[in-house]
Amino acid sequence: MEVVEVHPSVEQYAYTFGGAAPLRSVRPGQALRLWSEDAFGGSLRTTADVTSNTPPAPGLNPQTGPFFVEGAKPGDVLALHLVDLEPARDTGVSSLVPFFGGLTGTDTTALLTPSLPERTWIYHLDSARRTLAVELTAGGSREAFSVELPLDPMLGTVGVAPAAGEVRTSLVPGVFGGNLDTPQMRAGTTCYLRVNVEGALFSLGDGHYRQGEGETCGTAVEGAMTTTLVVDLVSSEQLASSSMRTTTGAPASAPATPRLEDDDHWITVGTGRPLEDAWRASQVEMVRWLRDLFGLDDLDAYQLLSQVGLAPLANVVDPAYAALAKVPKALLPAPAGGAFGGVHARLRAAASTLR
Amino acid sequence: MEVVEVHPSVEQYAYTFGGAAPLRSVRPGQALRLWSEDAFGGSLRTTADVTSNTPPAPGLNPQTGPFFVEGAKPGDVLALHLVDLEPARDTGVSSLVPFFGGLTGTDTTALLTPSLPERTWIYHLDSARRTLAVELTAGGSREAFSVELPLDPMLGTVGVAPAAGEVRTSLVPGVFGGNLDTPQMRAGTTCYLRVNVEGALFSLGDGHYRQGEGETCGTAVEGAMTTTLVVDLVSSEQLASSSMRTTTGAPASAPATPRLEDDDHWITVGTGRPLEDAWRASQVEMVRWLRDLFGLDDLDAYQLLSQVGLAPLANVVDPAYAALAKVPKALLPAPAGGAFGGVHARLRAAASTLR
Amino acid sequence: MEVVEVHPSVEQYAYTFGGAAPLRSVRPGQALRLWSEDAFGGSLRTTADVTSNTPPAPGLNPQTGPFFVEGAKPGDVLALHLVDLEPARDTGVSSLVPFFGGLTGTDTTALLTPSLPERTWIYHLDSARRTLAVELTAGGSREAFSVELPLDPMLGTVGVAPAAGEVRTSLVPGVFGGNLDTPQMRAGTTCYLRVNVEGALFSLGDGHYRQGEGETCGTAVEGAMTTTLVVDLVSSEQLASSSMRTTTGAPASAPATPRLEDDDHWITVGTGRPLEDAWRASQVEMVRWLRDLFGLDDLDAYQLLSQVGLAPLANVVDPAYAALAKVPKALLPAPAGGAFGGVHARLRAAASTLR
Amino acid sequence: MEVVEVHPSVEQYAYTFGGAAPLRSVRPGQALRLWSEDAFGGSLRTTADVTSNTPPAPGLNPQTGPFFVEGAKPGDVLALHLVDLEPARDTGVSSLVPFFGGLTGTDTTALLTPSLPERTWIYHLDSARRTLAVELTAGGSREAFSVELPLDPMLGTVGVAPAAGEVRTSLVPGVFGGNLDTPQMRAGTTCYLRVNVEGALFSLGDGHYRQGEGETCGTAVEGAMTTTLVVDLVSSEQLASSSMRTTTGAPASAPATPRLEDDDHWITVGTGRPLEDAWRASQVEMVRWLRDLFGLDDLDAYQLLSQVGLAPLANVVDPAYAALAKVPKALLPAPAGGAFGGVHARLRAAASTLR
Repeated sequence: MEVVEVHPSVEQYAYTFGGAAPLRSVRPGQALRLWSEDAFGGSLRTTADVTSNTPPAPGLNPQTGPFFVEGAKPGDVLALHLVDLEPARDTGVSSLVPFFGGLTGTDTTALLTPSLPERTWIYHLDSARRTLAVELTAGGSREAFSVELPLDPMLGTVGVAPAAGEVRTSLVPGVFGGNLDTPQMRAGTTCYLRVNVEGALFSLGDGHYRQGEGETCGTAVEGAMTTTLVVDLVSSEQLASSSMRTTTGAPASAPATPRLEDDDHWITVGTGRPLEDAWRASQVEMVRWLRDLFGLDDLDAYQLLSQVGLAPLANVVDPAYAALAKVPKALLPAPAGGAFGGVHARLRAAASTLR
Repeated sequence: MEVVEVHPSVEQYAYTFGGAAPLRSVRPGQALRLWSEDAFGGSLRTTADVTSNTPPAPGLNPQTGPFFVEGAKPGDVLALHLVDLEPARDTGVSSLVPFFGGLTGTDTTALLTPSLPERTWIYHLDSARRTLAVELTAGGSREAFSVELPLDPMLGTVGVAPAAGEVRTSLVPGVFGGNLDTPQMRAGTTCYLRVNVEGALFSLGDGHYRQGEGETCGTAVEGAMTTTLVVDLVSSEQLASSSMRTTTGAPASAPATPRLEDDDHWITVGTGRPLEDAWRASQVEMVRWLRDLFGLDDLDAYQLLSQVGLAPLANVVDPAYAALAKVPKALLPAPAGGAFGGVHARLRAAASTLR
Repeated sequence: MEVVEVHPSVEQYAYTFGGAAPLRSVRPGQALRLWSEDAFGGSLRTTADVTSNTPPAPGLNPQTGPFFVEGAKPGDVLALHLVDLEPARDTGVSSLVPFFGGLTGTDTTALLTPSLPERTWIYHLDSARRTLAVELTAGGSREAFSVELPLDPMLGTVGVAPAAGEVRTSLVPGVFGGNLDTPQMRAGTTCYLRVNVEGALFSLGDGHYRQGEGETCGTAVEGAMTTTLVVDLVSSEQLASSSMRTTTGAPASAPATPRLEDDDHWITVGTGRPLEDAWRASQVEMVRWLRDLFGLDDLDAYQLLSQVGLAPLANVVDPAYAALAKVPKALLPAPAGGAFGGVHARLRAAASTLR
Repeated sequence: MEVVEVHPSVEQYAYTFGGAAPLRSVRPGQALRLWSEDAFGGSLRTTADVTSNTPPAPGLNPQTGPFFVEGAKPGDVLALHLVDLEPARDTGVSSLVPFFGGLTGTDTTALLTPSLPERTWIYHLDSARRTLAVELTAGGSREAFSVELPLDPMLGTVGVAPAAGEVRTSLVPGVFGGNLDTPQMRAGTTCYLRVNVEGALFSLGDGHYRQGEGETCGTAVEGAMTTTLVVDLVSSEQLASSSMRTTTGAPASAPATPRLEDDDHWITVGTGRPLEDAWRASQVEMVRWLRDLFGLDDLDAYQLLSQVGLAPLANVVDPAYAALAKVPKALLPAPAGGAFGGVHARLRAAASTLR
């Protein structure tokens, strides 16, 4: 399986979903290996670098893309299977950005309190041990306290061009994907996004070497990333075809908000504010998915989800929050054909030839 | 180790935290085996029973307790170690209650839309296989679709009398505990609650044979439960003593909101509305706990939590929501002495003589 | 008309709604003149007094009451007509309380940011001009900038004992009234509250010499107050009687949340968090009221409210927020009989003999 | 004073802020008379027309514009003074749109409850009496109940191109203005918006013949409108000039969120979700404005606002909510020079030659 490699130049970065010219075209079935810069534009390299003295240049959250998927049209489902995520630098960085994060006043929760102090932490990658070592030293004022954490690479940002002609910055998550910031966006996961414009125009970036759920302080262990993925497409015609119809005969629904699948879980990602609205969006979407997968009515799907669902948070720091509904496959019978006609299993198999 | 057994009569149920006379006194170190009725007062027994035709009697969410803990005084920390939770009936029940649940208008999110239809599901316990079998049959209108789920017993409600002379119904969670509705309140967990009144006056109930995170439809697999627990107390004097001081010399802080500990995690539970405020409460409390455990300053603890924390939701359906911050112990060094002087490990050892 | 005067001793203050013994009994139709202490317990007297150096003693938000209304039973409507509010001191005080207010982290919106600085302002009453003069001098560090504002006395707190055996502190608003903190609670207003316990057990306090909508910094111009009011009762039997039935024949509904009426407006007060839920509660209650007053169905009442309603905020700083729906009577036909059988007009007439 | 008249053709409507080519250029100081279509694209004409059977065509919320303001550059302040708003049809329309409005599940507050029924109301304009007459007849099922309300024309939508290359639909409000839906956007008001792109690119539309605060059911009395306005510009250089400096010597701040001014009030408009965040944004912006106008520090401005501010809601139905902070000028001394060097008074004077 051929892999197309893309390492964008600084001038080629995109900073929005929608509104950027395609970087190149790809075909469904194609494998890609994409280099992406970190969320700070690679600016922060030492614990002395904070955003007030080292402003992210050329800009915050640069994206690699967008890619024009041949044949993709509004109403189709774009499937992006993440095969492999490898750190592209040997250090990752996290930094307290003034008036950003979950436990401070922000642009969106405006207060009169002053900013928290700025501080930067550098995480050193040990690629053999697959760990990240960091010193927590109170800004240098105390003796060393080191922690070595497992490497767990993920992408903060995966998205397509929004509907209705909108253009959104790469800092915002929404029904188009974007800055979802969930640790679940890791190798082995297939991401399903509804296509809103011809060619879908997907891009990705904001690599994290690891992130806690919620991304509490506003930034993960940010780092340049090399992402291997396979692109696929489920057309609206296929969704309506007999093979994908649910047991009740209804066509499968396209995702109203991002869906993820790995070998062990079906997952939906709701976005919005307040956080209960992000959660509600994830739950209603999972009710819809369980209904499709098992031919249930809404109330039975609601009941099933209530007893089997996991609900980890993604981010509670971006201009919109993101929450997950996550159902372990092991708790339920295997649905006939699998989600979207089994695309995850097929991509998983194709991917195994790549790594 | 002697175990005091309590099976309250119907007249002895409590329906509030605070405001109820003690059922009996217990000493720190004592083991208890408590029978508790289910949240519907045991009223719903078949799929034909819904709350509009079978109102919960004598009342919703009856509690077993309160118990007066000898020597407990405001500022102390009550530690309740859950040793064992066993279903006390062979069926559990879940029901859609009008204008209650996460995906409908409610008393607290008042709308003009009509109620969702009522429906009740009965879960049959197989105690040998430790599973719960349920039929999802669209209210009887479709062919049988059965699911068999693992038994995973937990308590919806554990709490003490609130501060400031308040009395709250057993339907509400808060800093005093109460109706937290987290699956984490299972056997093997120690629950820490700040004592607000002489004797602490704790009670528990609302057994769930299993529950998804968020308790989406408003009710779990509700069932009568037999709970074995050990009671302990950490006095405010002990918190200030040298053995519990943090590496910076500060006294350990009493929980501002419920904390949980199991063999693998430290956990804090934030409550409130909107959901981001429940989340914030859990996160600030975990920053405080990590600060105490490892002698970090706030910003280093904030950073550490951001990269290692899990954030599963508890409930998004009660009058106040509950969210968890959960830190895996395996990711961090073992803190000297353990939390609150190692009370969890001691209770765990004591419990092993009971089961 | 006889007026019963009550000036409680310090020992007689109540600090909760529910849970306090009645101060005395009153009959429906009775007039009362009640002295109430300010929210700081009268502690703050100069700009040098802040709550960290002068803790409110004996406690925060002392209430005058509760009063047992003879004959009041659950399901009745208590009507309290405010005849006159007069400052009982010649100075009022406002103060920034640490971690309290709308533009700072708080107990309920927990953050890591430090407290805003404390500062106290003293307002001098000119009773002839009916104004309040204050110096805004940046804590004494700049030249005098004085503002003279109109006196506009109101009560922050009016409430009854809650339902379900609950006891709530006088700092919290809810469906039982309590700390609503709306400038609308002024002389000329009738406040309707659903009775939850025998005798209703109402109390009041937290006088404000004036307050902006939202009470942004957390405290109004707080001051001791002399309140003249007339107490009345609409029984559940009267609500169901032919004279109070709506044009559709349905009985008038008792308030699910506080309602207010003055000569020019019908007003409902919703409480809760997030603020949209407080707003929703106020709107749904006003839909219900317009439905009753004019015999509309829900959707027509929803439409009417959408085009004629005012929506001023009450408080966005207390543990629950409060929002108002306010309909100008002048925009609509006069409803037959008036709200609750015209009790506001009758009390207004009775009051005119008192002032 | 010459007035440029613009009546766009259907093909010229814009549906976004940003992302649309300028309709024409205007100079600062210019007067315009703009015709705008209603939010339903003029589709709904009788009570039998609802959006499910008469979809808005060519689209929802068409805008007139955008206009390129010569010389406008990022950091400047665009001032739009509304001189006159006249209904351009003799009927206005309000309609319940499925899953839209404040008291139903919506796209952003996703629930499982069904849609409220659709219903449309037609308001008949009497231009002599300046009233709107409507029949509230429960969808035709009851005898006529008519209400005649005062005409009070306003614009739902006034905005500029957003920052950061974003493009937002005309259904969304934000710091760029847009679908604020406040009754305050009426004749006599000056609207100040920060310029984000060369030429500012403002547009307007969504005329309302009247609207209650909150726009509860989701739609006002929607109608085509003829808007007369005068355009002006305050450059960033002028903001920093000595004449506009505050008494503390700091340059006047450009609006972080829309500001409004009429003869009697200074007003700020905060947007966001949850509603308390929209409110916080309005309050922080008003603290900033009072600080500039009177040379106060933040805490004194916070105090002043807390005692004099009004807080009416704008909309609680759009994808972001909008809340106002409103300060009556009569309560305070006249600030030297007036806001932004007195531009409102100058435009008011210029406008008087137009009507």
